[in-house]
Amino acid sequence: MSVLVVGSIALDTVKTPFGQAQDAVGGSAVYFAAGASFFVPVHVVGVVGEDFPLDSLDFLKGRGVDLRGLSVEPGRTFRWSGVYGSDLNSRETLDTQLNVFAAFKPAVPDACRRTVCVFLANIDPELQLDVLRQVDRPRLVVCDTMNFWIEGKRDALLRTLQEVDVLILNDAETRQLAGEADLIRAARKVLTMGPKTVVVKKGEHGALLISSNTFFAAPAFPTESVFDPTGAGDSFAGGFVGHLARTGDLSENSFRQAVIYGTVIASFNVERFSMDRLKDLTREEILERFRALKRITHFEE
Amino acid sequence: MSVLVVGSIALDTVKTPFGQAQDAVGGSAVYFAAGASFFVPVHVVGVVGEDFPLDSLDFLKGRGVDLRGLSVEPGRTFRWSGVYGSDLNSRETLDTQLNVFAAFKPAVPDACRRTVCVFLANIDPELQLDVLRQVDRPRLVVCDTMNFWIEGKRDALLRTLQEVDVLILNDAETRQLAGEADLIRAARKVLTMGPKTVVVKKGEHGALLISSNTFFAAPAFPTESVFDPTGAGDSFAGGFVGHLARTGDLSENSFRQAVIYGTVIASFNVERFSMDRLKDLTREEILERFRALKRITHFEE
Repeated sequence: MSVLVVGSIALDTVKTPFGQAQDAVGGSAVYFAAGASFFVPVHVVGVVGEDFPLDSLDFLKGRGVDLRGLSVEPGRTFRWSGVYGSDLNSRETLDTQLNVFAAFKPAVPDACRRTVCVFLANIDPELQLDVLRQVDRPRLVVCDTMNFWIEGKRDALLRTLQEVDVLILNDAETRQLAGEADLIRAARKVLTMGPKTVVVKKGEHGALLISSNTFFAAPAFPTESVFDPTGAGDSFAGGFVGHLARTGDLSENSFRQAVIYGTVIASFNVERFSMDRLKDLTREEILERFRALKRITHFEE
Repeated sequence: MSVLVVGSIALDTVKTPFGQAQDAVGGSAVYFAAGASFFVPVHVVGVVGEDFPLDSLDFLKGRGVDLRGLSVEPGRTFRWSGVYGSDLNSRETLDTQLNVFAAFKPAVPDACRRTVCVFLANIDPELQLDVLRQVDRPRLVVCDTMNFWIEGKRDALLRTLQEVDVLILNDAETRQLAGEADLIRAARKVLTMGPKTVVVKKGEHGALLISSNTFFAAPAFPTESVFDPTGAGDSFAGGFVGHLARTGDLSENSFRQAVIYGTVIASFNVERFSMDRLKDLTREEILERFRALKRITHFEE
């Protein structure tokens, strides 16, 4: 199974307590693809401006990422700039320039319309639904969103959610979408909005996988070297969806493993700026942390 | 193995979003004893005033808790009053009256001096050390503390920690004691202060067990009915220490199980005011949640 991802491609200027990066390659689609490419072929649909350094994506091509859906438009690439607080848990957006992303109309290449697994990264829910109209009944639709759409395009988001199998959110977004302060009650309420499964990302506190008959809690990987949290959520989604697409196994245990793979990929991603750590990451390193998380959570009855 | 606990015995006035309780029986020693009594005989050392309703502890006696170390002094019992915020994660202390607790000098009854397992609940570290001077080389010393002592009696606390096997703290206390923002680095630093094992309680995010060669992460039990968080930490300690004392097994797996038992006891405790839920709790209910936490964290490799 291959995966189709639709999302942003950006040039990020990021400042953390440990340093800063200028115009580093980022965006939800790229972080996702970098993570998922360890598991399956990935088709990327997105847009960049004429200023985008296309060769910076060569490492993805080398890993079987298909960039035919990447459109280069006149103008500048989407830019985001932000600064992280000393504990890396809070961040402030300094500047957002949509540029060519403002007029983004995802066009799924003919060759990818039969992709059976789709990841709708965090973009306008109307565009997410538009993408689903362009593909042939996928077997698995996984979706991300954010506070901006939950607040500003709630109706469109609720329509999109009707066609989503798995929704990936952070804890604040889960509470906001459900209008419910208790996180578990909030997640259960989201299950009534369309998705059969909700994955709640809690940053350093791990992630929850919740469906009508599943409750799975995974810790974060205990890294002491968080360097730049940018892209953690999208690379998590890359590992999560990548594992499900690679195995084609949508059983409960496979979903649990997928959360662990997402956790592992995100834990590597935050160790350096941009996608730098994912560039030289190996499958063996991924498996090592997967096994470590098994030890970290294991107890005999 | 039985357990000796030294700590506070209080009358708490608590307000939560769900109701309020006036002069409800509380205090670290009582919450601990209520939790540990499902596992082992417990000896309580503490002090109450003449106004304390001694019959409110009858349910503990019925479960093998030895109250010979409970001293009744002229004056009023220690009183604490607090109010919890709407998400139950924040609380404000409205009033603290030490009363007879101000002059508390723990006296371990002769019959308990050979108890091989000691829990030093959150009291003045000088008194904690004094208790250790009164007992015969215990096999396991577990200790709790709080921001008040970390800040105000740091040197005494560091002396006490030299004789402690396991330190139980919450995340904020761990960071404060270590002077280190990163939680895992902070916990590792605490391991250089005496304790061979640190248990970090993270409330709704579960708990970590960290020693030189162990890293274990346990989620909280996913309850949707948190009613009153008072005593969660002490009842956690009761389950944790209770399991270790009952089995006498200080292996790594036993410590991991102990964290799970602590999690289970705390999850029941917060479901009602004061110790009300622990009063009618059964061993079978405890085992049921223990097994549920196994399912919640399990994945096949």
